[in-house]
Amino acid sequence: MSELRADPMTGRWVIVAKNRSQRPIEFQSVPDVRGDVYCPFCEGHEAETPGEILARRSPDSAVNSPNWQIRVVPNKFPALQQKDPIEGHRDGIYEWTSGTGAHEVIIESPRHLMSTSELTDLEVTQLFDVYRERMLELRRDKSLIHCLIFKNVGSAAGATLSHSHSQLIATPIIPHNVLEEISKGQAYFAESGQCLFCHLIQKETSAQLRVVDQTDHFLAVCPFASRFPFEIWILPKQHSSHFEDQHAGSDAELGPFVRTTIRRLEKKLERCAYNYLIHSGPFDTGPMEHYHWHIEIFPRLTNAAGFEWGTGYFINPVPPEEAANLLQTVT
Amino acid sequence: MSELRADPMTGRWVIVAKNRSQRPIEFQSVPDVRGDVYCPFCEGHEAETPGEILARRSPDSAVNSPNWQIRVVPNKFPALQQKDPIEGHRDGIYEWTSGTGAHEVIIESPRHLMSTSELTDLEVTQLFDVYRERMLELRRDKSLIHCLIFKNVGSAAGATLSHSHSQLIATPIIPHNVLEEISKGQAYFAESGQCLFCHLIQKETSAQLRVVDQTDHFLAVCPFASRFPFEIWILPKQHSSHFEDQHAGSDAELGPFVRTTIRRLEKKLERCAYNYLIHSGPFDTGPMEHYHWHIEIFPRLTNAAGFEWGTGYFINPVPPEEAANLLQTVT
Repeated sequence: MSELRADPMTGRWVIVAKNRSQRPIEFQSVPDVRGDVYCPFCEGHEAETPGEILARRSPDSAVNSPNWQIRVVPNKFPALQQKDPIEGHRDGIYEWTSGTGAHEVIIESPRHLMSTSELTDLEVTQLFDVYRERMLELRRDKSLIHCLIFKNVGSAAGATLSHSHSQLIATPIIPHNVLEEISKGQAYFAESGQCLFCHLIQKETSAQLRVVDQTDHFLAVCPFASRFPFEIWILPKQHSSHFEDQHAGSDAELGPFVRTTIRRLEKKLERCAYNYLIHSGPFDTGPMEHYHWHIEIFPRLTNAAGFEWGTGYFINPVPPEEAANLLQTVT
Repeated sequence: MSELRADPMTGRWVIVAKNRSQRPIEFQSVPDVRGDVYCPFCEGHEAETPGEILARRSPDSAVNSPNWQIRVVPNKFPALQQKDPIEGHRDGIYEWTSGTGAHEVIIESPRHLMSTSELTDLEVTQLFDVYRERMLELRRDKSLIHCLIFKNVGSAAGATLSHSHSQLIATPIIPHNVLEEISKGQAYFAESGQCLFCHLIQKETSAQLRVVDQTDHFLAVCPFASRFPFEIWILPKQHSSHFEDQHAGSDAELGPFVRTTIRRLEKKLERCAYNYLIHSGPFDTGPMEHYHWHIEIFPRLTNAAGFEWGTGYFINPVPPEEAANLLQTVT
């Protein structure tokens, strides 16, 4: 069983999860090797994963058998696990709780694809639909306050398996980075009566300096203070604080738009490793005027070094205006 | 010329430094290759670096020529540069300044060594002495408020050259991570009348659960909420907020102690890539009762992935108690 520990010097939380060191590492020195390795996520290997939580599969197929399009399973080496009730502990300056939460894997295709860019229209639409369905289900659990959806592609991005998959980690605490965004959003709203992200969308759309692409309802932009070269944020143009409250019909627009955006990155940067993640409002609030869900995508071209870990700040050698310009020109 | 940009959503600063993309990358896929590559930091290649700011060298040797023990030079591809005055800009929600600051490289030996563990007693003592000398000099510049000393060893730790070197980046802002520590330290001091770090030292020394090693004046401990497997902090036992105010005589104890600690890591983890950094108080304050300088050392065994970048939290598969136990047994 894991533990959630708070650092008394920073308030930062760490999940100490001993079982995670037992994960099989498919990747060796060569990133993204599509090798002869036995893949536990491929169709026909359903017995290699814990039993499915959700699947879109042929009506005549049995649970945990072939003939599926997308499967959600508990992580075999979970950072957190659902357990009731949360046990809180304190010893002077040290505070910790049992590692309560959820850690799930979304296997995005029965075929051994390695990037979102390879998914079909149906697969990428279902993917975002399944994200939403899992979040709606998990927020019914009152011990969970937040859910982060994320995806790691390539060993440089922290992936240990190459088969295209996403993960979600639902936690009894709100992530530091989301708290920061909420707090800045709240301050801006109090001052201007407007959502900071809505304002950003207007500003970027009118300036056209950092816009990469857009659809009717979504905007892709390289943020003004991009941490990483070629970082991209995708935001819904209409105000919305919670990803899971988005109308399900929007997935057919959002999914393919995310895929197109990743294709741009991969064409420009030759199949780079990348991460994406969805920042969405906490489970324990209704719709928020001052927060706006969004997707952050970043290729992993540089390694965070002593400066980044020591300061919490970043050095980015590619101005976002230049990145947006270069990304616009590829399709 | 680079820029310092603030992210309106988080308050996080990013240095946008286009020139950094022109750095030569010595490391390719094989980490730590001590190859046939031409090293700009080796003795005899002084012309490859910008002119030295400081050097310990034979009295009869000329500046920027051989016969030195340690050299400090400006980074050839600086993230920040000294320039007076700082120009501040604002365009609505976006705020940025000219990239004012200092970015220096400390070349730790004329020989092509690759890790602190290989330095001689004299070299490692001089290294900490030179850190202090540069910080004392830089804090006379009123445009600079903080200085981070850091070291990257191995490509997984973000190094681009293998020759053992440290860097310093002095900034006109206080790093987020240091601000967080100061703020927690301030709150704890207000409540208890004691320095949080001094309290941690007492607590860890009496518990003996996470202590790795100690000398008369320094303690090495795996922190309770270690972000990374085998993370180690080295703290002065006597209260002190500013590294550069430490008595110069302490370097002969501190330098070799840091080297021994890194040797422990390398013996346990087979010459791992690692970073270390010094967290010290801001330049614009005198000694602080509620802050305590320290060194953070962390081997780079895992890659930060979507979860870490999305939350600001960490998943650590090795409990610090276990790490301390394993590190104690190697010498």
